[in-house]
Formats: sequence, structure tokens, C-alpha cells
Amino acid sequence: MTYSTNNISTEHIEKKRIAIIGAGLAGSLLALKLSQQGYAVDVYERRSDPRALSAHAGRSINLGLSKRGMQALASVGLLEEVLKTAVVMRGRVIHFPDGSTKYQAYGKNDNEVLHSIDRNELNNLLLDHSEQYKDLKLHFNHKLVSAEKTKRLLEFSNEGRVVTVTPAWVIGADGAFSTMRKEMQYGERADYQQEYLEWGYKELTLEAGSDGQSVIELSALHVWPRNHCLFVSHPNLDGSHTLTLFLPFKGADSFQCLHTPADVRVLIDKYFPDLTPLLPSLLEQWDRHPVGALITTRTNQWSFEDWAVLVGDACHAVYPFFGQGMNSAFEDCYMLIALLAERPTDLATVFKTYEEKRRLHTDALAELSKQNFTELRQKVQSPWFHARKKLDVLLNKLFPSAWLPLYTMIAHTTIPYAEARERARRQDNVINFGSAAIFCLIGISVVMLLS
Amino acid sequence: MTYSTNNISTEHIEKKRIAIIGAGLAGSLLALKLSQQGYAVDVYERRSDPRALSAHAGRSINLGLSKRGMQALASVGLLEEVLKTAVVMRGRVIHFPDGSTKYQAYGKNDNEVLHSIDRNELNNLLLDHSEQYKDLKLHFNHKLVSAEKTKRLLEFSNEGRVVTVTPAWVIGADGAFSTMRKEMQYGERADYQQEYLEWGYKELTLEAGSDGQSVIELSALHVWPRNHCLFVSHPNLDGSHTLTLFLPFKGADSFQCLHTPADVRVLIDKYFPDLTPLLPSLLEQWDRHPVGALITTRTNQWSFEDWAVLVGDACHAVYPFFGQGMNSAFEDCYMLIALLAERPTDLATVFKTYEEKRRLHTDALAELSKQNFTELRQKVQSPWFHARKKLDVLLNKLFPSAWLPLYTMIAHTTIPYAEARERARRQDNVINFGSAAIFCLIGISVVMLLS
Repeated sequence: MTYSTNNISTEHIEKKRIAIIGAGLAGSLLALKLSQQGYAVDVYERRSDPRALSAHAGRSINLGLSKRGMQALASVGLLEEVLKTAVVMRGRVIHFPDGSTKYQAYGKNDNEVLHSIDRNELNNLLLDHSEQYKDLKLHFNHKLVSAEKTKRLLEFSNEGRVVTVTPAWVIGADGAFSTMRKEMQYGERADYQQEYLEWGYKELTLEAGSDGQSVIELSALHVWPRNHCLFVSHPNLDGSHTLTLFLPFKGADSFQCLHTPADVRVLIDKYFPDLTPLLPSLLEQWDRHPVGALITTRTNQWSFEDWAVLVGDACHAVYPFFGQGMNSAFEDCYMLIALLAERPTDLATVFKTYEEKRRLHTDALAELSKQNFTELRQKVQSPWFHARKKLDVLLNKLFPSAWLPLYTMIAHTTIPYAEARERARRQDNVINFGSAAIFCLIGISVVMLLS
Repeated sequence: MTYSTNNISTEHIEKKRIAIIGAGLAGSLLALKLSQQGYAVDVYERRSDPRALSAHAGRSINLGLSKRGMQALASVGLLEEVLKTAVVMRGRVIHFPDGSTKYQAYGKNDNEVLHSIDRNELNNLLLDHSEQYKDLKLHFNHKLVSAEKTKRLLEFSNEGRVVTVTPAWVIGADGAFSTMRKEMQYGERADYQQEYLEWGYKELTLEAGSDGQSVIELSALHVWPRNHCLFVSHPNLDGSHTLTLFLPFKGADSFQCLHTPADVRVLIDKYFPDLTPLLPSLLEQWDRHPVGALITTRTNQWSFEDWAVLVGDACHAVYPFFGQGMNSAFEDCYMLIALLAERPTDLATVFKTYEEKRRLHTDALAELSKQNFTELRQKVQSPWFHARKKLDVLLNKLFPSAWLPLYTMIAHTTIPYAEARERARRQDNVINFGSAAIFCLIGISVVMLLS
């Protein structure tokens, strides 16, 4: 179906407006970009305005901004401003059970780094900039109740009243449990899959020392890999780090077993003795912070005709272990905007093309993110893994355009995810073949020397 | 959590009653069985009483009743009565494009047959028998709106009013799009997957001849396998057959392409020329019957504490190609009832055990049902396939307990699905190894003869 302005009645001004469901990162970025391009936008968010909360009311969640996210932020002119609030992470520091550490650079030079940013701060910045456009309206406390796609009508509940709007078209940026997705796909033959990780997470803060300095290396992501559990930390500008503990929900030494403060203390002492002295407020923090669950979702049918389209977690939530949740959502937005610029009057084609070009890559990312959970927990403890990483970096330095480690491709380039995975597979084959050849040569040499 | 009658307040009589959501086949069977055992049961069905409709108001859908379903019907004392309304199907007749046919028996003797039954008739029979129990109440036009599991409360909408009940416990038998499942799993970490087949289906009736006799062999399932499409028919007692056409939704020669009666006629003539003369009312029927979609669903967390449990399509919808949808749902009921009889006061354990014992088998059935789609469409056209089937039957006759063809295990035994699949795999290995050995022996003999 072709979108044409002739289809739009001018009776209701609302009909000419774009509705964005969700004022999270992807929703706010799209609101800003579309406003910059002259569109009239309404953003509907079920929560209240996050900017009205005090800075520390919510949990401090930080994320690793990498190339794909940076590309999108650059496109709205905010990259520099965001980077000012970020802490550079040049690599990861691996903390072994015996207290020793190992450093692994994220790339071969200063361009190949990640940036630790505060999620709430970024969200607020995007909202502040959006709000400068007079054709943009932010509607907080608006919970999407239903979307009647045949009538092209959205119904929100807002503080006890029902608000009905008929936008020209709709972007669903309302997260992994997207109501827009459910409503839009109702009665369609949409495949859908949701899978929970058997591990949950809890966020804690590793405060800066009394001198205001970070108690561990600031410019790095830190990992405490244990087969059974895992701590990851992202640095904050104030010298603190946001720690995330990943632990199974059930079984021995799981969240389920932690009934008393003493249980928590015993668990942390057992697996992370080096963290204990750095976390004096552990037990107090433990009670304040909830246990979160992690979900991977996949679906097809990301859009409905020329009326609705999904972005980010609403169509593909991934585990956080490759640090690509926000980055891939921002890349969705970037791609959608680019396709829209190509054919602004043919939304149905834009939406279809977007899914066709994008879905195989976000499916690949879902797999990569699952695999990286094993890498973070287990592989980083193996000397073979480190030798292989070093070889990767060496080959990358020797052949900078021909040889790109998987991590480099995912974090520091915009090579589509599935292509990156395929290219990494080919590189693996080269290394495996090469190793086999070397062993053969050594064998032949030994035989010749002995004979 | 342990269920105990002490937990139940006697203030509300409703609290002591079991609620069954859905008066379809599984719901009605459970209502009858639980009533027979002395439980007080309320059945809530969103549609009106199907028995109030005229016999031919709904579509005539028939199903192949096999061992697992028969076992459950025998347990409520209705097997004989049901079989009186059924048509025996001793095997399948394969109709090739050139008009030739081939017959394949379903088993090695008269016990290994399927029974074609009318779905609505069976449903009505189960409801009629249930209703004879004074402690059973059928509530039609009651659509489940929400289930608040913490308050143990169900809310229905019934002709404009809201009905709230607080049953002792609940069985969700409300089909593939189960509201009970969604409500029960809300906020839980339940994995879920739904997958649509890219093919749809349309049901048509192949009327009996003017003499009241079936125009094709009555006591058989008929298959018209084409790579691109497929007709399957189940016989009815009146000499008619219910035909189901399976066809892709999109692409060349798909449902999407059939715009005019002429298009339909051309498609049927192209792929099923032998059916054309038998279907004089094809076009008239085509317009009356909708195109259906086929879905496979999987989930975990089939229950919530000692309060709610799911059966049948509500926890595992499968494609119909192994004819096991109803049979597996009835087997769920049979197993749940058996576990309940073992520990009637420990529902939480009953429900957990039921899922633990059952889910791997319904997961296996989902895979088998997908594979059988290929078998029905393609493999049955191959001479190799028929030779293999004959060998299977021969080995089964020689070693009746040691060698059981997969189809026999699924349709004519109650061997759990995953075990049947595993056993069939081992048998395949024996045949593959045997064939390889025979080829080797032939090769050696030839070489010896020549030398």
C-alpha cells in the first residue's frame, strides 16, 4: 500500500502527526531526529517524566556506547555532548579468583574504545533536545491500551481517562514487552519467541575512594569471571563503577538461596574475595536493588502496512553480554531514518525494506550475545583464549582492512552483524587450517631430523 | 507450596470449586472426568453453547482418533459410544498426479487403525455427559478477561457484565491463544515460542454420490500429495469426506493469488484433476469457508503454584500433520488425572510433575508434526519411502515387540513421544547399517566371482 498525503483527512490535526510509543532511548532519539527533519511528533510514555526525578532516584544504569550508537548520536548532532559525560573504556580488566588481573585492550588504537555512559543522563539529554522543537509534544503517564490498526487509532490511559488519537503513523519503541507489538501483530501470522536466561542480575555501586578517585582502574570495563557467576562493572565520571552481578536464579549459590544478609556476604566472599573490602555498603545496597531478569526476543512482521513499525527491544531484545542492546536499537533508528529519507511518501515499502534488511542482523546479534555470555564467564579465564585474542590483534595490525577480530567488527565498525559473524567464521577457519598446517610442518620436520 | 484444605475459606462456596477455562475437547473431557471423581467443577467457555447450534451451522471438522485419545475416552467410559459414530480408517490412499493410487495400511492388523470422528459431535457428547453431574456447571459466553494469581481470582466478561470468581484451582484449556496462559505467566520468566506455517488451509466437503455411497474408498484417509500443495480427507459416516486443502499463503499458486472463482478452478484443475469432477460445488463452498492458519507453540511454566495448570493447545499447539493434536491433549488430561489421583492434596507437586514428565514429549511431538508435513507432501511420492515402509511392516511382523515403526508407536501405542522418536532413530540406524552391510557383501561377492 502506498502512503499518500491525500489519504489524510485534514479535519483532525492529530492525523498528520507521527506517534512514537515509548520515550526510552530509541523513542527519544527518533523523536529528536524526526523533529529535526520537520516532522510533527507526539511521544507517548507510560511513565512520568524521568527528568522530574532526582538524579539518584532511579538506579544508575550505565551502558557501553560503541560505533553503531555513536553513528546515530552523530546524526542528531549530539555525539560530542554525550562523549563529554562519558568515561572512556580502553579495554577490559579481568579479575581472576586468586586476585590477579589481566588487561585486554578493546582495539588496536585510541579510536577503538568504548564509552561508558549513564543511561538516564543520555535519555534526559535526548528529551531536552527534542523538546526544543515546537512541533514535538511529550505525553508522559500515557499508557498504550490498544491499537486498532484497521481504524488506525491508538488508545491510551492517562491518569484515569482514556485518550484516543489517530496519528498518521506510529513507531513502537516500547521495549521488550511492547504493547504496540502485541496490538499490531494481533490476528497476523507473526512468529514470536521469548527466552529467559536462567541467570538474573543485580546492580550495585562500587563507590570511589575517600579521595574521590576510582578504587580500580577507571578507564576500563572490569570483569570478574567465575563459571558459576560473574561481576561486570562500568565506570562513572565521579570515580564510582556500576557493578552488575549475574547469578543463576535457582540451584546452589543462586539468588534463590540468598535469604539473609549473611548468605549474601558468604557468597560474595566465596567467589569475589577481592571485592569484599571494596564494597562496605554491600548489604545495604543489596536490599535496595531488585533482581532483574534477562530476555531474548525475536519476531517477524515488524510493521503493519504504512501505519506502524517497531524499533529496538520492541522487535529484538538481546542479552547484554555484547553490550549491543542500545547500540543496535540506535542502529535500527539510523537505518529507518535513512530509508525514510529515500522514499518519504512510501512508508509501506520503507517499513518492509527496513525489516528485510535488518532482521537477519538482529537475529545474528541475538546469537552472538548469547555466545558472549560464555565468553565473559568462562573463555576469558583460558590462556588459549588470550593467545587467540593476541593473534587476532597481531593479524589485525598486519592486515588492518583484511583481518578484523569479531569484537572489533561488532563494537568498532558498522559492518552488519550477520556479515561480521560470517567473516569471523572464515577467519576462524583460516586460523584452524593454519594451526593444523603448522603442526604438520613441525611433525614433518621432526621426522626428517630424526631420519 | 503444599495444598491443604485448611487453606480454603468456606465462606464462599465458589472457593471449593475447580474452574476449567474452555469447553473444547480437553476442557470437556476434564470436566467429565473430574465430575465422575466427585469434584465440583465450573466450566467457563467464551462461546455460546455449541449444542444450541444446528448440526451444520459450524464447519464439519473431523479428526483421527488414535490410541492415546482412545485411552482417555475409555477412562471416562465413552470409548464405545464414540466409536459408534466413527468411521474406521485402515490406512491411507495416496492419489498421484496421474490419477493412480497406492494404499498404505496404518498397521499390521485390525487393531492398528484410526477412527475418523466429528469434532463437534464428540465435543457435544462430552458436554452432555458432563452435565449429568449436579456439581458441574457450564457457563457459556464467559470470556476470561484476567486472572489475578496472587488474589487467586478470575474475571470474566459475560454479556456486558463482569463476573468474578475465586475457584480453588484452575485448569487452562483455552487453546493455542490461551488467555489463561498469558495471565498465569505474567511476570514469570516463562519462555514462549509461536511459529506459523507459511501454508494455510481450507476445508471443503466431498459429498457422497447420489446413491449415498462414498465416491472414494470410505475406510481410509486420502492424501493428494503435491510438492506445492496437499489435499487430505477424513471420511464421515454419511459417506461424505471432509477435504482439507493445504496451500502456501503467498507466492505462485498460493491463497494470495486466488482472486476469482476462475483462479480457484484453474488451481484445482492443475494440481488435482481427478478431484474436479467429484467437487461440483467447489466454488460455492470456497466462498463459504475461511482460510485457516496453522501454529506451533511451546512454552515452559505450565502451572502456577497449586492454583493453575494448562493442558492441550494452551501449552503446546502442534501442526495437524501427525494427527496428534486432540490425541496429545487427551493424553495430557489422562496424565494430569492420574497424577492427581496419586496426590490429591498436593497440587503444586502434581502440576510440576505433570510438566516435568510431559513437556519433553510434547516438544518432541511438535518436531515430529513438522517433519510429517514433508512426509505427507513429498516422501509419500517416493518409491524408496514405500519400500522402507514395507520393510518396517515386515520387521514389525517378524519382531512384533522389538521392532515398531514410528507411525505405529505414535498412533497405536502410548509410548511417550520422545521415546518413540528415539527408538525410531535407533531403528533407522539399524536399517542404514544393514543396507551398508548388504551392499558390502554384494560387492565382495561380485569381486570373488570375477576373480
